[in-house]
Amino acid sequence: MTPLDKVGEFGLIRRIQENIQLTQPSTILGIGDDAAILAPPAGQEVVISTDLLVEGVHFDLTFCPLKHLGYKAVAVNVSDIAAMNALPTQLVVALSVPSRFSVEAIDELYQGMRLACEAYNVDLVGGDTTASRSGLTIGITALGQVAAGEAVRRSGAGPNDLICVTGDLGGAFLGLQVLEREKQAWQADPETQPELEKYPYVLQRQLRPEARMDVVHELRDLGVAPTSMIDVSDGLASEVLHLCQASGTGARIFTENLPIANPTLEVAEEFNLDPIMCMLNGGEDYELLFTVPLSAHDKLKNHPDITIIGHMVDKSEGANLITKAGQPVPLRAQGFQHFE
Amino acid sequence: MTPLDKVGEFGLIRRIQENIQLTQPSTILGIGDDAAILAPPAGQEVVISTDLLVEGVHFDLTFCPLKHLGYKAVAVNVSDIAAMNALPTQLVVALSVPSRFSVEAIDELYQGMRLACEAYNVDLVGGDTTASRSGLTIGITALGQVAAGEAVRRSGAGPNDLICVTGDLGGAFLGLQVLEREKQAWQADPETQPELEKYPYVLQRQLRPEARMDVVHELRDLGVAPTSMIDVSDGLASEVLHLCQASGTGARIFTENLPIANPTLEVAEEFNLDPIMCMLNGGEDYELLFTVPLSAHDKLKNHPDITIIGHMVDKSEGANLITKAGQPVPLRAQGFQHFE
Repeated sequence: MTPLDKVGEFGLIRRIQENIQLTQPSTILGIGDDAAILAPPAGQEVVISTDLLVEGVHFDLTFCPLKHLGYKAVAVNVSDIAAMNALPTQLVVALSVPSRFSVEAIDELYQGMRLACEAYNVDLVGGDTTASRSGLTIGITALGQVAAGEAVRRSGAGPNDLICVTGDLGGAFLGLQVLEREKQAWQADPETQPELEKYPYVLQRQLRPEARMDVVHELRDLGVAPTSMIDVSDGLASEVLHLCQASGTGARIFTENLPIANPTLEVAEEFNLDPIMCMLNGGEDYELLFTVPLSAHDKLKNHPDITIIGHMVDKSEGANLITKAGQPVPLRAQGFQHFE
Repeated sequence: MTPLDKVGEFGLIRRIQENIQLTQPSTILGIGDDAAILAPPAGQEVVISTDLLVEGVHFDLTFCPLKHLGYKAVAVNVSDIAAMNALPTQLVVALSVPSRFSVEAIDELYQGMRLACEAYNVDLVGGDTTASRSGLTIGITALGQVAAGEAVRRSGAGPNDLICVTGDLGGAFLGLQVLEREKQAWQADPETQPELEKYPYVLQRQLRPEARMDVVHELRDLGVAPTSMIDVSDGLASEVLHLCQASGTGARIFTENLPIANPTLEVAEEFNLDPIMCMLNGGEDYELLFTVPLSAHDKLKNHPDITIIGHMVDKSEGANLITKAGQPVPLRAQGFQHFE
């Protein structure tokens, strides 16, 4: 293992730079100057989003491999770009690294980031690497492009639009429950082997989520333009309320329509957790939640990766969950909130 | 004082959002969605730079007022945009905030950032606010615009170009020395009043540096196009070496030409520090270091804010400091480096 002070700040930057491949035609100059230079094509708008991942708040290095962490850091930022109906193009990475880290550990983190950059076709064009007095902090700012006027905001939903979600929900939250249980068992007895092989699906959902760029492309191919969109990072309930607030609508979400994967359901049962609550408030699924006009119903109703979970209503009706018995229950944001 | 958990993450975001004024014509949508939307004008390139400021590494809240810190965080990012010969347009701010902070403290930090945004005509268009398990971390990503092909890189200097620096050097470093001495005195005896009024110039240089956007505009007005440029963040010696390395040149810097302000010189004497070393290795001056063709000599030689400190030479000659006695001394980067 090579200590960081052996290569120094500039050595580390050179090391990162050497392994970077630039593929976006709009990237004119990448890492290595005071700033990167980009040339967004005429007629395109640029979207920009930033996220900070903090050790001890967003991730726990006892059970999160650095390569996965690097991948996830990029994926969650790409997810914000996807949620604007844009294609990701470039990103910059700011790292604050504790001196206990080795050069090899940083290499592993960047390896994960590079894998994600390749998967999403994004160029890593710049960054900042500084020391840290405590934990690891990863700050990523992602840029994307979208034809002028075609970015999808949270505010465009109408009162009769269908509410759709991609993939399935609750898995990332239950993956975290498994990891925390195994960590406690391991802390109580370091001889214990963690039992992780039994839970590949929910662990993958927690440790290595994917941004749903595939769905952004598919909706374009289908000719469906979402009227509002957001990604599911804090929990479905919280995100539905964000769309309602921004669009000035209410919503009806039908519990029996909420998508859950079988492995997620099994883990929920094992942990005695209500699967509906896991889907509504679990968070970190990084699926897309969006609304479409009623007219898109036929195009989406049998889509294997998209589920219609409800519809918008007039604001006066509020945002409700409709139980199997047809009872409305007001939606509450109980997902993760900082400082609460 | 209002604790952060009283307003929560979303309350804090709303609070920040309410006080933001957007003035850039290229800003289509600011804070409040998954990403901001920008429309860079046709024919313009976009430059992007990111910086992380970490408590205990880059700043010490015992002597750095939060409002100044907010201002400085924006200014140092704008300085990177200036160093590309671009005009700053937008920025996003990612904060990781310890729970010991009050809502009022965060307001003060943003007040400083807003002041800087007004001073540099930049729009704050997005951000992320998370908890922190330890100190405060501020991540800023700044965007700028420059006519296609007119961004100035580090790599464009030729072997006869003049080397120029704006303003004066060493002040920020000596400001830090004053602050650290007063902190030690205060820690030894909390009844002591820190003696700061005697040092307004160097303290201002340290606590509230300005990006030299004024010089970027003036060079345009003068019709002078720098061939290479960088901002002085790590120390003049380190930055000269960066320009030489990127441009494939050597350099001669004349010690008697190095610009120092009288108050800086006085503090250097008081601290028994060599003023030349303070100018070369002090860092954090955020002045611009740039090269121009020989033909620009007459336009710059009497400029009150620009000093010609030397010239580029063939790579084989290396980068040297030329003493008053005419002796060459190899330049070494001894400025601040992380992990060293």
